[in-house]
Amino acid sequence: MLNFDNDYSEGAHPLILKRLSELNFTKQPGYGADEESAAARTKILKACGLHGQGEVFFLSGGTQTNLLVLDALLHKTQGVIAAVSGHISIHEAGAIEGSGHKVLTLPGKEGKLRAQEVKAYLETFYHDLNAAHMVQPGAVYISQPTEYGTLYSKAELAALKAVCEQYKLPLYVDGARLAYALSSPFNELSLQDLAALCDVFYIGGTKCGALIGEAVVFTNKAPQFFFTLVKQHGALLAKGFILGTQFNVLFSDDLYLHIADQAISLALKLSAQLKDRGYKLYYPTRTNQIFLVLDRSESRSLADKVQLSFWEQLDNNHDVWRLALSFATTAEQVADLLSLLPVKN
Amino acid sequence: MLNFDNDYSEGAHPLILKRLSELNFTKQPGYGADEESAAARTKILKACGLHGQGEVFFLSGGTQTNLLVLDALLHKTQGVIAAVSGHISIHEAGAIEGSGHKVLTLPGKEGKLRAQEVKAYLETFYHDLNAAHMVQPGAVYISQPTEYGTLYSKAELAALKAVCEQYKLPLYVDGARLAYALSSPFNELSLQDLAALCDVFYIGGTKCGALIGEAVVFTNKAPQFFFTLVKQHGALLAKGFILGTQFNVLFSDDLYLHIADQAISLALKLSAQLKDRGYKLYYPTRTNQIFLVLDRSESRSLADKVQLSFWEQLDNNHDVWRLALSFATTAEQVADLLSLLPVKN
Amino acid sequence: MLNFDNDYSEGAHPLILKRLSELNFTKQPGYGADEESAAARTKILKACGLHGQGEVFFLSGGTQTNLLVLDALLHKTQGVIAAVSGHISIHEAGAIEGSGHKVLTLPGKEGKLRAQEVKAYLETFYHDLNAAHMVQPGAVYISQPTEYGTLYSKAELAALKAVCEQYKLPLYVDGARLAYALSSPFNELSLQDLAALCDVFYIGGTKCGALIGEAVVFTNKAPQFFFTLVKQHGALLAKGFILGTQFNVLFSDDLYLHIADQAISLALKLSAQLKDRGYKLYYPTRTNQIFLVLDRSESRSLADKVQLSFWEQLDNNHDVWRLALSFATTAEQVADLLSLLPVKN
Amino acid sequence: MLNFDNDYSEGAHPLILKRLSELNFTKQPGYGADEESAAARTKILKACGLHGQGEVFFLSGGTQTNLLVLDALLHKTQGVIAAVSGHISIHEAGAIEGSGHKVLTLPGKEGKLRAQEVKAYLETFYHDLNAAHMVQPGAVYISQPTEYGTLYSKAELAALKAVCEQYKLPLYVDGARLAYALSSPFNELSLQDLAALCDVFYIGGTKCGALIGEAVVFTNKAPQFFFTLVKQHGALLAKGFILGTQFNVLFSDDLYLHIADQAISLALKLSAQLKDRGYKLYYPTRTNQIFLVLDRSESRSLADKVQLSFWEQLDNNHDVWRLALSFATTAEQVADLLSLLPVKN
Repeated sequence: MLNFDNDYSEGAHPLILKRLSELNFTKQPGYGADEESAAARTKILKACGLHGQGEVFFLSGGTQTNLLVLDALLHKTQGVIAAVSGHISIHEAGAIEGSGHKVLTLPGKEGKLRAQEVKAYLETFYHDLNAAHMVQPGAVYISQPTEYGTLYSKAELAALKAVCEQYKLPLYVDGARLAYALSSPFNELSLQDLAALCDVFYIGGTKCGALIGEAVVFTNKAPQFFFTLVKQHGALLAKGFILGTQFNVLFSDDLYLHIADQAISLALKLSAQLKDRGYKLYYPTRTNQIFLVLDRSESRSLADKVQLSFWEQLDNNHDVWRLALSFATTAEQVADLLSLLPVKN
Repeated sequence: MLNFDNDYSEGAHPLILKRLSELNFTKQPGYGADEESAAARTKILKACGLHGQGEVFFLSGGTQTNLLVLDALLHKTQGVIAAVSGHISIHEAGAIEGSGHKVLTLPGKEGKLRAQEVKAYLETFYHDLNAAHMVQPGAVYISQPTEYGTLYSKAELAALKAVCEQYKLPLYVDGARLAYALSSPFNELSLQDLAALCDVFYIGGTKCGALIGEAVVFTNKAPQFFFTLVKQHGALLAKGFILGTQFNVLFSDDLYLHIADQAISLALKLSAQLKDRGYKLYYPTRTNQIFLVLDRSESRSLADKVQLSFWEQLDNNHDVWRLALSFATTAEQVADLLSLLPVKN
Repeated sequence: MLNFDNDYSEGAHPLILKRLSELNFTKQPGYGADEESAAARTKILKACGLHGQGEVFFLSGGTQTNLLVLDALLHKTQGVIAAVSGHISIHEAGAIEGSGHKVLTLPGKEGKLRAQEVKAYLETFYHDLNAAHMVQPGAVYISQPTEYGTLYSKAELAALKAVCEQYKLPLYVDGARLAYALSSPFNELSLQDLAALCDVFYIGGTKCGALIGEAVVFTNKAPQFFFTLVKQHGALLAKGFILGTQFNVLFSDDLYLHIADQAISLALKLSAQLKDRGYKLYYPTRTNQIFLVLDRSESRSLADKVQLSFWEQLDNNHDVWRLALSFATTAEQVADLLSLLPVKN
Repeated sequence: MLNFDNDYSEGAHPLILKRLSELNFTKQPGYGADEESAAARTKILKACGLHGQGEVFFLSGGTQTNLLVLDALLHKTQGVIAAVSGHISIHEAGAIEGSGHKVLTLPGKEGKLRAQEVKAYLETFYHDLNAAHMVQPGAVYISQPTEYGTLYSKAELAALKAVCEQYKLPLYVDGARLAYALSSPFNELSLQDLAALCDVFYIGGTKCGALIGEAVVFTNKAPQFFFTLVKQHGALLAKGFILGTQFNVLFSDDLYLHIADQAISLALKLSAQLKDRGYKLYYPTRTNQIFLVLDRSESRSLADKVQLSFWEQLDNNHDVWRLALSFATTAEQVADLLSLLPVKN
């Protein structure tokens, strides 16, 4: 059966496995103090245009990273502003609340938080006589690409950053699928742009060619005690060199910048073909996720031939389904999928 | 430079890397729903003599596992009883307290909690008129092998279990280095014995031949919502198959039962030789950790030739140092180390 | 200056101060083990029709009570369903999230959660394939009267209870202003009805004639370790008899059932007069809170004569203001207020 | 039956009840914004010699106060250093751990933490290569008087303060029974001395003549968002004026400085008489608590005549019992007690 269920169903880029094998019996210090991790940190900071500033930490997964970065940024009385569709708002089992912080949701549009709605929220908040009785806004969370595969333009991110600076709120960008943005022709935001326009972001590894791992980039200094906070949350790997080695490979020879090129190229071509065949896409395809509207008979007939992700019910006869391509998706797999989706009359 | 600093400085058993490479482009479902994980769970339950009962979950590291198991076992008002030398008491950055639970420490002996001291503590607690104003004991935590490399005998574990049953407290065994117990001639406790004498334990992977990973075995049903709790703490890997694949390899052909054979054989021989040469060992060597007493001039002269772990100051001129062997330690490395430790006059 | 700002600006019913003075030098056991507290508990259970069942605890304030009851009801992975206007959703500084639990908000209507929307939410939740990755619904929270002064009908509460039972969720009623419901001619829900139709509710004291204090009524057994949880959150008063004494007075001679009679009578009359004079009320007046629409020139001219609570901006020229009467509000004060609000042309 | 069980079994000083009655129907703003609270804060700061600096907050009880002050002082990765006998270490149901922080215990002596042991602990901690993997020390907690009724001398407190300053740790003094220190002839530490030698302390009301209430004094600025943190923990009283009024009375005409004079005078005289009669005291009597050693036959014969607090078992035939006097204890009650304790042969 074909599988377009998600972008984390394969292992790692072969160069990563090769490097892990080569180094397998080399003794490494624990907890990220090894040379592979050091090299990876240096390469990442350079790729982000952070010369002589910034700190990089390696973690294992997206929810863990969001939890730790926000727990480090937020005072005990603070919450984080996010779009209702933000991953932290819905699909992280209350990780943020579990660490004591409310997610303050705003509607957003196509998965993107808009500078104006954040500004309006903050103005209202600080004019409220009861503000001291409410959760204090302490950070802003966005995703690039968003959970809907859409992208912030440079102007949109700059506008958000300006609002954050006005209210002295750190801006945090969840880059779980960042490689898919970097390979997209629609993308305006390089790693350097991101580093310049936010306070902390993470470079996704798990969904972008690593076995596991995310690289958190604090564009200035990391919050005090961040290392200990990571340990306290059980997120510090004894064999930290396994994360460092992977990012060292991903940031050698610009591998990360191009690892998703084929996935994006295939996704955009597939989207165009689907539209040509008369299918409706619920969101414009910008990265590796395609949100396809199917009627019930269509989805039933596909059910035993290809795995897709049910996204949401649209009306009594139509649903939105997500197709995700990954760095490892082949042209053949896409062709096979397309053959299952005939021209609509 | 020689390195006997710890037992997590190499990668994985070669069979693990081989299997990960073979499966690299096979599409796997996420979050542990894959066939490798299923096979690993079945093999582990069988190895533990748990037929038709028990549940297995895969996590990434020891502190994470302790945090999650105890957070799942403990009511919000409860704490966990542990030895003062317990890993959770000292070296986990307050992970247990960070999730709201006190570690209730008892002295223990050679790293082992004794049934009698636990019983005495519980008797005093429940006779205290102020018991409702104090942290409720909710579980008992021990390590096998202990942080000092020592081993619980079958009688010692059975006695602890009996006290726990009397007070209806779950008994949890931290098996971060369990393979080193299983390969030790001093060990009386098989996987089946452990499964019969505690409520939950974990089979360490990170320090025992895996890249990362620990297998939690609930000997009956797992606590309700355990999966969601794992997710909430950011400990659920999207690519859960990476953990499952490793444990599938470790529990094929009894690999786990023998992976530490060489390390133990080398450690016991080295201990004997050190004693022959006039060195004092601070704890009896039972597994892969050797606690060596050195005077300051000795440790200074070793400092640039071999990496050891400083353990504690003994007196004004002597310290305890830890030597750790791993599944990957070679006879040559041990011979080189021994050559640095001359016969004491 | 007149003050209709809130319903907690006076002290206590004079009988309470009298009783506290009488007992002042009588030695009482600590932490609620005294006879006044015991008598109050008995009287409250009787008033609620809970014969031979139910447990009563006394706490100090509303946010504290909501925090403790919900922390006791919810598993670590669970959240609580509430209306967006629910007090716990907005005005408790993230107390629920601070204890690790998400508030799962639904729109509601006039401050009331509707059985149908709760049911729809739960159906969708349990059909979601990702449900285990999301916050588990663990309780339902409503207020009677609501934050808008409106009242649940008996049918509405019974419908909510039925949904809760279907999904095995405890239903919790915040009764911070319960006396104002009990004295309202619009009220259909007696204490006995409430006790029969929810799992736990609290009888507000602070806003209903006590100095401080809320009485939590678990209609069956209290959750395990509730006393210790209260202590752990710093909410156990050493002089618990001060709370018990007050509720003993409030539940003698049906005082609590009638303590708000005058406030309600005055509030309803005032509402009718305001409507006669051409003013618009934003919500129908059912209890002691009146939500009055004023244009900017009107509110400016009142600003130095009477204290009201700004509620929300309606449009560019109109705002909603809240007038709150209390058990201690006098007819004279209401007449003085009315004299400031002339007939609108 | 006589009752020397504790010092919180009576109500309030009569002047407090009088003042509450006088102001009962005066409208007050909520949450501590009232004039009584403002007056109390000013008087307290003046009594502490804090001119133009310092902030005062009113809370309801001791555990709540310890929880909030420490939660405000400590970073998420930090714990608090305390004596093993410290109230927060044992008798607060894990309130500190419940908010995520470990209590780092040191032995102490007669309930007092010694500067030298704190210094030694900190030196060892910061020399530990694993310090970043452990709970970071973030504050020091002591009690004046201690849980054993003993008192810190000025030199002892100054020495502790010096260590705290060296390591940049705030020093926090729990003054639940502070009035009993202030009235003791053994006391060297005035309110001004305390304010000069620590960073935050609280002036106990509950055990010192108030109905409920503790006054937290930050000797410089309060931590950011402290008000919101109080609200988040459910500790903000709507009728804050009830706390403010009590402290306004207690700090008028030096009432607080002398409210315990009689209790101390009676306690010291009683202690001397008991020693004359041949009884052994377990700790020297310095304040209102007397720790009396009784053999089993003695305590059995007292059991139905007077309530004492069992403290601890001394040996097979002797126990330590605590007698507590309060601001309301009369000379007659003490004489009655003494008559039950005959001269030992």
